[in-house]
Amino acid sequence: MNSASLDLVFNPRTLALIGASENEFKSGGMFLKSFVDCGLKSKLFLVNPKGGRIRGLQVYPSVLDVPEEIDLAIIAIPASAAPNAVEDCAKKGARFIVVHSAGFGEMGAEGKKMEERMMQTARREGSRVIGPNCMGIFCPEAGFNTVVPYIGGLTEESGDIAHVAQSGWACEHVMLMGYERGLRFSKVLSIGNQSDLTFVDFLQYLGSDPKTNIISAYLEGVKRGRDLIDVAKKISRKKPIIIWKAGRTEAGTKAITSHTGSLAGDHTIHEAAFKQAGVISAQGVEELLDLLIAFRSPYLPKGNKVGIIVGAGGAGVAAADACENLGLKVANLPEEAQLELKDLLRGVIPPFSGVSNPVDTIWLPLGQGPSIHPQMIEIMSRAVDAFMIFSYEPYGESYLSVLEKTREKVRKPIVCVPPHPTKGLDTTPWTKRGLPVYPTPKRAAKALSALAQRHDFLQKVKR
Amino acid sequence: MNSASLDLVFNPRTLALIGASENEFKSGGMFLKSFVDCGLKSKLFLVNPKGGRIRGLQVYPSVLDVPEEIDLAIIAIPASAAPNAVEDCAKKGARFIVVHSAGFGEMGAEGKKMEERMMQTARREGSRVIGPNCMGIFCPEAGFNTVVPYIGGLTEESGDIAHVAQSGWACEHVMLMGYERGLRFSKVLSIGNQSDLTFVDFLQYLGSDPKTNIISAYLEGVKRGRDLIDVAKKISRKKPIIIWKAGRTEAGTKAITSHTGSLAGDHTIHEAAFKQAGVISAQGVEELLDLLIAFRSPYLPKGNKVGIIVGAGGAGVAAADACENLGLKVANLPEEAQLELKDLLRGVIPPFSGVSNPVDTIWLPLGQGPSIHPQMIEIMSRAVDAFMIFSYEPYGESYLSVLEKTREKVRKPIVCVPPHPTKGLDTTPWTKRGLPVYPTPKRAAKALSALAQRHDFLQKVKR
Repeated sequence: MNSASLDLVFNPRTLALIGASENEFKSGGMFLKSFVDCGLKSKLFLVNPKGGRIRGLQVYPSVLDVPEEIDLAIIAIPASAAPNAVEDCAKKGARFIVVHSAGFGEMGAEGKKMEERMMQTARREGSRVIGPNCMGIFCPEAGFNTVVPYIGGLTEESGDIAHVAQSGWACEHVMLMGYERGLRFSKVLSIGNQSDLTFVDFLQYLGSDPKTNIISAYLEGVKRGRDLIDVAKKISRKKPIIIWKAGRTEAGTKAITSHTGSLAGDHTIHEAAFKQAGVISAQGVEELLDLLIAFRSPYLPKGNKVGIIVGAGGAGVAAADACENLGLKVANLPEEAQLELKDLLRGVIPPFSGVSNPVDTIWLPLGQGPSIHPQMIEIMSRAVDAFMIFSYEPYGESYLSVLEKTREKVRKPIVCVPPHPTKGLDTTPWTKRGLPVYPTPKRAAKALSALAQRHDFLQKVKR
Repeated sequence: MNSASLDLVFNPRTLALIGASENEFKSGGMFLKSFVDCGLKSKLFLVNPKGGRIRGLQVYPSVLDVPEEIDLAIIAIPASAAPNAVEDCAKKGARFIVVHSAGFGEMGAEGKKMEERMMQTARREGSRVIGPNCMGIFCPEAGFNTVVPYIGGLTEESGDIAHVAQSGWACEHVMLMGYERGLRFSKVLSIGNQSDLTFVDFLQYLGSDPKTNIISAYLEGVKRGRDLIDVAKKISRKKPIIIWKAGRTEAGTKAITSHTGSLAGDHTIHEAAFKQAGVISAQGVEELLDLLIAFRSPYLPKGNKVGIIVGAGGAGVAAADACENLGLKVANLPEEAQLELKDLLRGVIPPFSGVSNPVDTIWLPLGQGPSIHPQMIEIMSRAVDAFMIFSYEPYGESYLSVLEKTREKVRKPIVCVPPHPTKGLDTTPWTKRGLPVYPTPKRAAKALSALAQRHDFLQKVKR
């Protein structure tokens, strides 16, 4: 597979929608509405045997009637009619075909045969297929969204994260939960049964995609396992790859078979191979998102020593426990640094209050964080590789910007835990500016631990 | 300790505030403001050597000048002056004294001595002490809130959960994060260094408190360990006890010493003893809250077989993996049940779609969940002990009430995962009506697993 040409999947010059419909409760209607809402940049051709016009656009009875070459065709009709549609698209010379239709390999032996025949037809004519049984493509810069077509506005902003999932749900949940927390995507792709094009093809493409800096995936089955590991090994040196591999249990494996017809394979073997290839493993959608947010930090810790600044002693205990449980080290501050901290905090904290790490600033009056925390960070920075901060300061622009500036000065990751109640707290600006925010010290510690492991990995492969 | 009399800690007839102040940035001013805002039911006496009047109330120069007997005195002055204030309160015959002031045992040997002398003074006169170094009491029915005194409205509603924590932060975070998710509390208590009255005393009291049905705690050190286990053993047969014991690591243990001067003790021994006493262990504030929400379910699963209904196949895979990872079993539906399900879903889902567990209802048009899901649950109920439901139905009153009715019919727990985006989704009504909601299948599975373990424990102790 020529990686460069896969760009046409995300930025097709021409797009044919097979099964275009007025009815927004049908996929072909929902996709069309999304194209209009998001301002799809491709030249769009609607196909439906009924012909006529929909939304002012001409409807071609067959894709073979379309007067131009087709970069990408989307098949949004029932499974029974899909193989013929694929055949037509292939004959038409469509470069890529997304088979949204479900009811193939995931239905058992009969469906698998049907699926294979359909793939052979496509390949014979040189077309490559995404799916079947998938939600297709999200690419903001192309105004292209069939992944969460029923929610507008998502294509207004691009990011540098690419996410690939066999499950439409795993695309949707990562996108929407991520969006709420400030993540933005370059590309999202639902690959369903990955009968022709597999994750490996897209991993390779995304590895050299200049718009993508982080890659995450939800996989049910691994196809071309050896290739995957080889490709991942190369790319993980440049870009973090985070994979949630499902099918760790008997029931999960069984559910996978009836979902995407995939073979889950041996969980332990996958984990070991992934690890060796520098792939970061996630378990569940929340952990995957927490990790993506961690990698918004522009810096990695160069060691495992954490500096903790808290506005309450209990939070310090929780943070210390969480860090060391994950193999991080709560740094011992050298005496000199402690003296400097004491000096800085003179008159602010009572003389009997200690300044050992975690540093408890419960005595610091609200409003002083933005001026004192940066100085504390600079002092502690000489002995630590990363910071966790739990503060009662309002999570507004002024606190955000001083923390950001301080981070640029010390060039070490800072993760934060906000005060509660958080109703209405929007952490988007924090995520976007590379200051990961987590609801609890435990999840913040997990983020730092992943960043530290990433640094270790990069050091290892450099040697 | 006579348990009955501890009720005066939460519902004091008379309350003396030592260190009453106009200044809301001082504890004595913040507490006073909270008493006024929350409509404290106790007869309040303000004490400050300056005398005069604050907020229209007379200020007594000394607690000894107060003309009535004192049930509870709160000491909100610097540590250096606290021992004398305690002595005065004890001489006055105050039944209970909350020492909010910090700067005692947590400061090292010298502070520990000061703390011990202060306790001896109190005990000599028959007064019992909460703290020092604590945030005190939250009791909605008494209009009493020194735990989160800067947030109003929290005392407007009572619940049946009691939470005790050595850390003020752990009180505040459990209360506020819990409140956002629909939990309400009977009593919350911050016990700080637990120098005189310890968690055991309050556990015993809460065990027979008719207003409390669930007890949770955050502990840094365990005092009177054997008593704690004996008391917990008895109470856990009637009420779930959930404990987050901090100090699992070296750094956590060290942080505990400078936070509440507690000895963290051996983590493994605590966990084993807790388990034997039927105590449910939580790690971190989020897990503790997830468990409290789980126990809003009025039913326990009578076995470990879970029925899963999902609106997307990927969610089914995630749910199945999560359940079996935690020792639950994704039930095999008997053929008869599968036929009934097929019959029910005829015309709604394509004939090729399977109905094995997890049951994927992706084909079910939105809006049909409220009528179809209850029937599915009733059919599946014959083979399963608990349900997890991920549905795209709007999480409004109509869906909530049919699920609640169905749960009452099958008398089995139902936990739910809502669709995204959840911005603005308020799960309070769900929590209140015993339908626990979690953002991910993984956390929902953890909840079911805790409920199943609770059932096992109760069966075991019955024998």
